[in-house]
Amino acid sequence: MSKEFIYTEIADGIASQIRNGVLKPGDKLPSVRMMCQEHRVSMNTAKRVFLELESQSLVESKPQSGYFVSRLMSVKLPLPEVSRPSLMANNDEPDELISRVYENMGKKGITFFSIGIPSGDLLPQAKLKKEIIQATRELKDGGTEYEELHGNLKLRRMIAVRSLQWGGNLNENDLVTTNGGMNALSFCLMALGKPGDTIAIESPCYPGILQLANGLGLNVLELPTHPTTGIEIEALRKVIPQINLCLLIPNFNSPLGSCMPDDHKKEIVQLLSEHHIPLIEDDVYGDLYFGSSRPKCCKSFDEDGNVLYCSSISKTLAPGYRVGWIAPGKYKKKIMKLKLLHSTSSISIVNEAVANFLKSGRYEKHLQQMRRALQNNYQNYVQTIADYFPEGTKISRPQGGLSLWIEFDKKIRTTELYDLAIKQNISIAPGRMFTLQDQFENCMRLCIGLPWTEETRLCLQQVGNLAKKL
Amino acid sequence: MSKEFIYTEIADGIASQIRNGVLKPGDKLPSVRMMCQEHRVSMNTAKRVFLELESQSLVESKPQSGYFVSRLMSVKLPLPEVSRPSLMANNDEPDELISRVYENMGKKGITFFSIGIPSGDLLPQAKLKKEIIQATRELKDGGTEYEELHGNLKLRRMIAVRSLQWGGNLNENDLVTTNGGMNALSFCLMALGKPGDTIAIESPCYPGILQLANGLGLNVLELPTHPTTGIEIEALRKVIPQINLCLLIPNFNSPLGSCMPDDHKKEIVQLLSEHHIPLIEDDVYGDLYFGSSRPKCCKSFDEDGNVLYCSSISKTLAPGYRVGWIAPGKYKKKIMKLKLLHSTSSISIVNEAVANFLKSGRYEKHLQQMRRALQNNYQNYVQTIADYFPEGTKISRPQGGLSLWIEFDKKIRTTELYDLAIKQNISIAPGRMFTLQDQFENCMRLCIGLPWTEETRLCLQQVGNLAKKL
Repeated sequence: MSKEFIYTEIADGIASQIRNGVLKPGDKLPSVRMMCQEHRVSMNTAKRVFLELESQSLVESKPQSGYFVSRLMSVKLPLPEVSRPSLMANNDEPDELISRVYENMGKKGITFFSIGIPSGDLLPQAKLKKEIIQATRELKDGGTEYEELHGNLKLRRMIAVRSLQWGGNLNENDLVTTNGGMNALSFCLMALGKPGDTIAIESPCYPGILQLANGLGLNVLELPTHPTTGIEIEALRKVIPQINLCLLIPNFNSPLGSCMPDDHKKEIVQLLSEHHIPLIEDDVYGDLYFGSSRPKCCKSFDEDGNVLYCSSISKTLAPGYRVGWIAPGKYKKKIMKLKLLHSTSSISIVNEAVANFLKSGRYEKHLQQMRRALQNNYQNYVQTIADYFPEGTKISRPQGGLSLWIEFDKKIRTTELYDLAIKQNISIAPGRMFTLQDQFENCMRLCIGLPWTEETRLCLQQVGNLAKKL
Repeated sequence: MSKEFIYTEIADGIASQIRNGVLKPGDKLPSVRMMCQEHRVSMNTAKRVFLELESQSLVESKPQSGYFVSRLMSVKLPLPEVSRPSLMANNDEPDELISRVYENMGKKGITFFSIGIPSGDLLPQAKLKKEIIQATRELKDGGTEYEELHGNLKLRRMIAVRSLQWGGNLNENDLVTTNGGMNALSFCLMALGKPGDTIAIESPCYPGILQLANGLGLNVLELPTHPTTGIEIEALRKVIPQINLCLLIPNFNSPLGSCMPDDHKKEIVQLLSEHHIPLIEDDVYGDLYFGSSRPKCCKSFDEDGNVLYCSSISKTLAPGYRVGWIAPGKYKKKIMKLKLLHSTSSISIVNEAVANFLKSGRYEKHLQQMRRALQNNYQNYVQTIADYFPEGTKISRPQGGLSLWIEFDKKIRTTELYDLAIKQNISIAPGRMFTLQDQFENCMRLCIGLPWTEETRLCLQQVGNLAKKL
C-alpha cells in the first residue's frame, strides 16, 4: 500500500467519525505518537493525517496540547447557493451604493466590516518602518531617481523564489512591478481589452474589478460561481465563443473566499489557452491560506504564457505601500509599455524596503502569525453568526483570505441593513456592491481582517440583531 | 503717464539699443540708483526695468556687480521655423526608435543628453533622505495604510498655497494627488477621451504624451507651434470643430522650451471653454523659469473649471518619488473614480516627505539654485553649439525648463546622428521621437539638466563634430 494511500485512508476514517458525531467538537484526538503506534505508520505519515484534517477545517491544533475536533463542526449553518447571474453582459454599476459605503472610510470610531484589507494591528508596522529607513539610507540616490522599468531587481528575485511555493517557476525577468495590485489588474485590462470586448468573471466579484472593467468599456459577463470551488467550468465553457478575456481570483476569492481545486485550475488554463483567450489571475490572497499548504495558481499550469499572474503585498503586509507585480507571460511587451506610459516607474524606496523584508525571512514568519490570526477570527465570526444572526443565515466556508460571504433570507435587504448599522457606527458591505446586475440584495461581505476583540464581537452581534429586525 | 507705461518704455529703449548693437554683449548697464536719477523714476520702477530685460534674456545680473548685456546676444544662431505638421490625425508611432533610445537608459558611462529629467547632482538628495526618514518615523501607521483618496492633506495645502505664484487660487479640495505627472495626464486622458476622439497637441510634443494618447485610441492632431510662443492660436481655432480634447504644455514646453504669452493662454482658455472642449494643462516645468518671475498658467484664466491642471515634482525635485497632482476643475468626480480604480491610493511616505519639504521653505531655495544652474547651463550649451555645431544650425530659445531644440540642415538625419553618438557613449533624442508623422528628421532635443562639466562640454562638442560629418 502506498504511503499516499495510508495517510488519506486514516484521515478519511477520522473525518467520517467527526462528521457522524462519534467524535464531538472539542474532543481531543490521539497524539502523533499514539497515532504511529495505533496504525503502525511513521511520524511523517501521522503528521500528514493531521495536516489533512486541519486543511479541511475538521480539526484544530492547540500549541502544547495537540489536536482537537474543530469547534466549527458544532455550527451547522448552510452554505450559500451557487450564484446564478444573468448570462447577459450587464453594466448596472451600483455607483451610489459604493459611494455611500466608501464615503465613511477612514472615519474614526466606525467598525469597518466593509473593507477588504487587514487591520493595522495585524501588520508588522514597526519592522517595516525600520526597513524603509534602512532602504532610504542605503539607496545611493535616496530613491530620487527612476528605477529600471522592470522594477526593483531584488524584489523581483524574491517574488520569483517565492513562486516555487505555489508551483510556479518564475525568474526575475518574468516579472514587472506595479503600484499595487489594482494597478496590475488595470494594466492587464488596458493591455488586452478594448471597448466592446467581453470579459468573463466570477460572481459575486470584487467591486473594484467590476468598476474597472466597466470603466474601460468592457462588457462584463458574470458567471455562476460555487461558494467553495469557485467559477463553474461548464458555465465558462459555454460562453467561450462570446468572450475575449477572463479574470479570476482562484485563491480565496473576495467576497466568497472560495478556492478553485487544482484540476479546475488546470482545465480552465487549457480551455482558455486553446481558444486564445488571455487569463488574468489575481492572487493577492493566495498566501493567506488556513490549511496546511499554499494552494497552486492557474499560472502553475500555464504552458504558453497565456496567464497574466498578478499579486501584491496589499492584503498581507502594507496596503499603503502600493507594491504589486505582474508575471505577464507572452504579453510582457504590452504591459511594459503601459507601465512606462501610465506610471513611468515604481517608487524605489518602498520596493527596496519590501524586498529587504522578504529577503530577511521576516515575511514568512509574519504570514504564519497572520494566517493563524485570520483563521482564529474566522472561527470566532462563525460562532458569533451562528449564535446571533437570524435563522436561515447561510455563510461561505473561506479556506483562506479576508472575506466571509453571508446570505440572508430573501426578505432581508442588506442595503437597508447598511443604513441601520452605520447609524450604530458599524459598516458592512452590501451584496449589491459585488455585481453589475440585480442580485445579492440579501447578501453581504464581512471582512475578517479586524482584530478579534470584545468590541468586534459586540458589533458583529449587533449586525445580527439589526438583521433580525428587518 | 501710468507706472506700467513708464517701465516698459524705458525697457524698450534699452532693448532696442542692445538689439541695434549700441550696447554690446558684456557691457555694464547703469545701476538701479543711476537709472532712478536719469529717468526720474522710483527704485521699484527701475528694478522692474531690469527684471523685464532679464525675462527677455537680454541682460543678466552678476551678484554684487549689477546688470550686463547678456553674452547670449553675441550668438546669432537662428530660431527654428514654426512647425508645420500635417493637419490630418496621424498615428505613426516611432516605436522602434524610442525603444532604441530608451534601452540604454540607466547604463553607466553614457552621457544622456536624451533624457528629460534633471541630473541627480541638481537635486537635494541628502535633505530629501532626511525628510523620508522623518516622515516614516512620524506617520502613525508608518505609511502602511491607505491615504484618503484625495491624497495627503498637507501636500495639497502646500500646492494650493504655491498656486498663488502662478495666478491660481486653488484650495486643498481642488486637488487630487497622483503617482507622478504622467499618471496625472493618463487619468485626464482616460477620464475625458474615448477611442476615436481627437486630441489637439503642440508639435513637436513630448513622446510620452503622443504614445499615451495613441495607446488610448485617440486621434492625435499635431498643430503648428512657434518655438518661443507655443501653439498657434489660429491653427487651433480652425480645428475646433474636429477636436474633443486639447493638451498643452504652455510653460517651457518640452522639447521646444516655448512659453505661451499670457494673452494667448487667456484666449485659448476662453476659446476651448466656449466650445466645451476640456483643456489638459501640463505645468511640470513651470517653476523652472529663467526670467525674473513665474509665468502664469492657463488654469489662472479658467472661469468654469474646464482646465485640468497637472503638475509634479519629477522635473524639479525627485523623479523617482512619483509625486504629482491634478486640479481637475469640474471633472473632479471622474478623476477621483479613476484614481480609486487604477491606483487606489498614493504612497503616504513620499507624499508626506515632500509636503514637509515644501512646508520647510527649502523647496523655494532649492528652486532658486536649480533655476540658476539651468540658466547657466543653457548659456554654456548655446555658446558651445555656436562654436562647434555645423553651419546653419538653428536653436530654440527656452525661457525655462530642461530642453533645447536643435534644427539642423535638412541633410543631417538625427537618427543617424544617434547611432554615431551612442557608439561614443553619448545619447541624444532624435526629433522623430516627438511626432507621430514624418517630420523633424533633422531635429533633436538636448536635455540641459546635466551638470556643466568639462566632460559635458566635450560630449556636446563631439555631437557637433559628428553632425558635421553627416
